[in-house]
Amino acid sequence: MQTYIGTRDFFPKESRYREWMFSIQRKVCTLYGYEEYSSPLLEYLDLYQSKSSEEIVDGQIYSFEDRGKRKVAIRPEMTPSIARMIHLKERELTFPIRWYSIANFMRYERPGRGRLREFFQLNTDLVGISSPSADVEIMMIAIDILRSYGASDTDFKVGFSDRRILSSYLQIENEERFRRVIRVLDKRNKIDQNDFAQMIHELAVDVQEEKKMHSIFDMELEDFMRSSLLDQEGRQASQELSQFNSSLKEKGYKIQFDPSIVRGFDYYTGMIFEVYDKVSSNRRSLIGGGRYDRLLGMIGKRDIPAVGFGLGDVSLENFLQSHHLSPVSLEEPQGVWIAFVSELLEKEYFHLATELRKGGIQTEQSLQAKGRLGKQFETAQKKNKRYVVILGEDEIGKNEISIKDLVRGEQTKIPRSSLVEYLQNADRN
Amino acid sequence: MQTYIGTRDFFPKESRYREWMFSIQRKVCTLYGYEEYSSPLLEYLDLYQSKSSEEIVDGQIYSFEDRGKRKVAIRPEMTPSIARMIHLKERELTFPIRWYSIANFMRYERPGRGRLREFFQLNTDLVGISSPSADVEIMMIAIDILRSYGASDTDFKVGFSDRRILSSYLQIENEERFRRVIRVLDKRNKIDQNDFAQMIHELAVDVQEEKKMHSIFDMELEDFMRSSLLDQEGRQASQELSQFNSSLKEKGYKIQFDPSIVRGFDYYTGMIFEVYDKVSSNRRSLIGGGRYDRLLGMIGKRDIPAVGFGLGDVSLENFLQSHHLSPVSLEEPQGVWIAFVSELLEKEYFHLATELRKGGIQTEQSLQAKGRLGKQFETAQKKNKRYVVILGEDEIGKNEISIKDLVRGEQTKIPRSSLVEYLQNADRN
Repeated sequence: MQTYIGTRDFFPKESRYREWMFSIQRKVCTLYGYEEYSSPLLEYLDLYQSKSSEEIVDGQIYSFEDRGKRKVAIRPEMTPSIARMIHLKERELTFPIRWYSIANFMRYERPGRGRLREFFQLNTDLVGISSPSADVEIMMIAIDILRSYGASDTDFKVGFSDRRILSSYLQIENEERFRRVIRVLDKRNKIDQNDFAQMIHELAVDVQEEKKMHSIFDMELEDFMRSSLLDQEGRQASQELSQFNSSLKEKGYKIQFDPSIVRGFDYYTGMIFEVYDKVSSNRRSLIGGGRYDRLLGMIGKRDIPAVGFGLGDVSLENFLQSHHLSPVSLEEPQGVWIAFVSELLEKEYFHLATELRKGGIQTEQSLQAKGRLGKQFETAQKKNKRYVVILGEDEIGKNEISIKDLVRGEQTKIPRSSLVEYLQNADRN
Repeated sequence: MQTYIGTRDFFPKESRYREWMFSIQRKVCTLYGYEEYSSPLLEYLDLYQSKSSEEIVDGQIYSFEDRGKRKVAIRPEMTPSIARMIHLKERELTFPIRWYSIANFMRYERPGRGRLREFFQLNTDLVGISSPSADVEIMMIAIDILRSYGASDTDFKVGFSDRRILSSYLQIENEERFRRVIRVLDKRNKIDQNDFAQMIHELAVDVQEEKKMHSIFDMELEDFMRSSLLDQEGRQASQELSQFNSSLKEKGYKIQFDPSIVRGFDYYTGMIFEVYDKVSSNRRSLIGGGRYDRLLGMIGKRDIPAVGFGLGDVSLENFLQSHHLSPVSLEEPQGVWIAFVSELLEKEYFHLATELRKGGIQTEQSLQAKGRLGKQFETAQKKNKRYVVILGEDEIGKNEISIKDLVRGEQTKIPRSSLVEYLQNADRN
C-alpha cells in the first residue's frame, strides 16, 4: 500500500522539520499582531468558480459530489475562504483585520520539484485598509519571515508590479480579455520561449499590440511612468507603486519592479509580488501575494480592501535546504530512556517514569527486558535519547541510581533522591 | 456563501481555543516520549476497504475518483494510515514505536451534539509491544491528558473490555459472523432499546444465544472468568484484562470493566476501551481505543502488535465546557497598539513598531488616522490589546512617549528610550 501520488507521509523527523518551519511563521505573524484562524477542508465548489483562477478550477481542483449531491471541493487555496469568513461575520469583526493561517491544500498537478498535490501554506492577510502602507506591512512580514530563518537578503529576490499598469499600458479595458492576457503573460517564465511567443502572437489583436506585449518585460517602472499611453488609473497605480517601493527601501527592505510578475489568480486588483529563490534550480516562487480589493464584494455584499500573501512549504523547504538554513538542533538527542533490568522492579520503573514526567522530563519507558542491557542502550541510541536511567537490585539496595549519558558515553551513579534535579539541570546543558 | 454543512470556521477566538486543546495533548504525549507524525489528507480507498469499519466505508467515507481515475478517500480515521506508514519504513524504524498525531478527518454524518463532518483527532499509538504493560501505558496517557485539562476523575468514566471474551463466551468462531454481532452489540447505547432487542432477536441463531447476548451486559469480569463457557483464549484474555485492571488501579487510575463496550472498528483484536463524560447530555465517547495486533499484517507483510487511542476535538470541547475547564487566560488583553497621531510621524511609527517587535512585544500598528484618538482606543480595546502607545508632536519634542493601559484605564508618560524595557516588564504582570 503506497502513499497517494503527490502527497507525503511525515515521519517524526519530517514532522519536526515542518513544525519548526511553522513555528517561525507563527512567531513573526504574532509579533505583527496577526491572529491565527482556520477554515474547513471542504468548501462548496461555487466559492471558487469565477473567483479564483480558471486554471485551478478547471484543471487542478479536487471537486466531487457529496452523498447529498452537493458539489464540494477540497480547498486549493485560502483566499476565497478568508473572504467568505469575513463576509459571514462582517458586522461583529473589528477592522482592520490582521489574520494568518497555516493549513493544507490540494491541487491536481504533476508532482515535481517544489510542487506536490498536497502542500501546506501560510496565508497572511490585512483586510480593511486600502492605503499602500498596508502593502508595505504585508511585504515586511513576508521578508521578515525569510530573514527569521537566517536567510540573508542576497538569498532571494523580491519582484513586484501592479496589474493596473499593464492594463493601462496595453489599453485593454475589457476585463474578461485582460484576464485572458494575464493568464498568457503569467506563462512567460514557465514555458518554452517559442511557445510563449506563439501564444502572444495568437492573443494580440494586431502587430502593434503584439510588440507592446513583448516590450513590457524590459521596461522599468520609470519607463511606464513616462509613457504617454498610461491613463489616469495607470498613472495613479504607478505613483503608488513608486511610493511603496521607496517606503520599503527606506525601512531596509530591497524589492525590484518586475513587469513579468502578473500572478495567476483572477482576484488581484493592485500591487502584486513574488519572492524567488536565487538558486535557479528552485524555480517555483517561494511567496506570492498582492492586493485583492474586490473579492469580498464578489463573495459578500460590499468590497473591502485587502492585501496578503501565501508561503508554501514545499518550495520553502527547498529554499532552506539549498541555503543551509536548517537547524541541526532538531536532531539532537534528548529525553530519558528507563531501562528494564528486572521483572521484580516493574512497579518501580513506572513510579520512576511518573516522577520524571512530573519534573517535566521527557521519559520513555522500556516495557520489557529484551536481551542484555547493551541491547537496550542501542535501542535508546537509535531512538535518539540522551540518557538511560538504570535501576537494578544493586542500585535499589544502596538507594542509588545509574545514569548513562549516551552522547558523552559516561555512566555515573547518583543518590536516588536527586535524580529529577540532576536531569533537570543536565537537560539545560 | 455558507460554510459547508457539518464543518466549522475557526475565527481567532475558536482557533486559540483549539490550539490550547492541542497544546495540552502535545505536552502529555511528549512527556511520555511520543513523537509527532502526520499522514496525507487523501489515501487510496482500498486502504480502508475491509480493514476499517463497514459502517464508515459504506456509509460515511468521502471517496471519489481523482482526475486520473484513481479511487481515493479523505481520511475518516488515522489507524489505517499509521499502519501503512509503519509498513513502508518497517526496516528503518526502531521498535517500539511511540507516535502521536493531531489531524483533521471527515465523515459523512448527520451533524449533531458531539458529531460533525470535519473533526480533529489526537491519535496516540504504541507499536511493537504485545504485553499488557503497553495497554497500561496507553491508558495512562489517555487519562493523564484529561487530568492535564484540570478534570478530576469523577468528571469522566473509563470502561474497558476485550472482544476475545465476548467471542469466547458467545462461542462464535466464524470471524465474519462475529464482526456482524459486534456491529449490533455496538448499537446498544446508541439506539432505542426495543429496536436493539429486535436486532438481537434477528441476529441470534436460537433463543439460547439471544438470551446470552442480552445477559452479557450485566456481567462483571469475574462472572466471565468463572463461566464454564470460556475457552482457552477467552480465559487468557480475561486474566490479562484482570491484570491490566489491577496494574492501573495500583498506579491510581480507576477504570471499570464494561461488557457493553465493543467499538465499531473491525481491526481490534484485544483490549478495547472508551472514556465517557459523566454529563449525560454529552453522549458521544470522548476517547476510544484498543489493541489491534493484526492490522499491520493486513496492510503489510507481517503482524506487529499495536495499541492506541483517538481523542476527538468536538466531544472534548463539550466536555471541557460542561465541566468549566476552559482557561480564561486565552481571552486576556495582550500586546501593543501604536496609535496614528500625525501623518508627519508615519516613519516614526514604523520605527517604533520594529523596535518593539525586536524586543519580543506583539505590536499592531494603526496605519491611518481615523477620527479622534478616542476612536483608536476603542478599536484597540475591541481588538483586545493591552496597551496603546501614543507618539505625537508633543511627545517627540520632549523625547517622551505616552502609554495607555486599556485594562487599568491609566495613561503615563515615560522617556522614549525606556519604552521597550517598560513594556517587557509590564507584559509579565
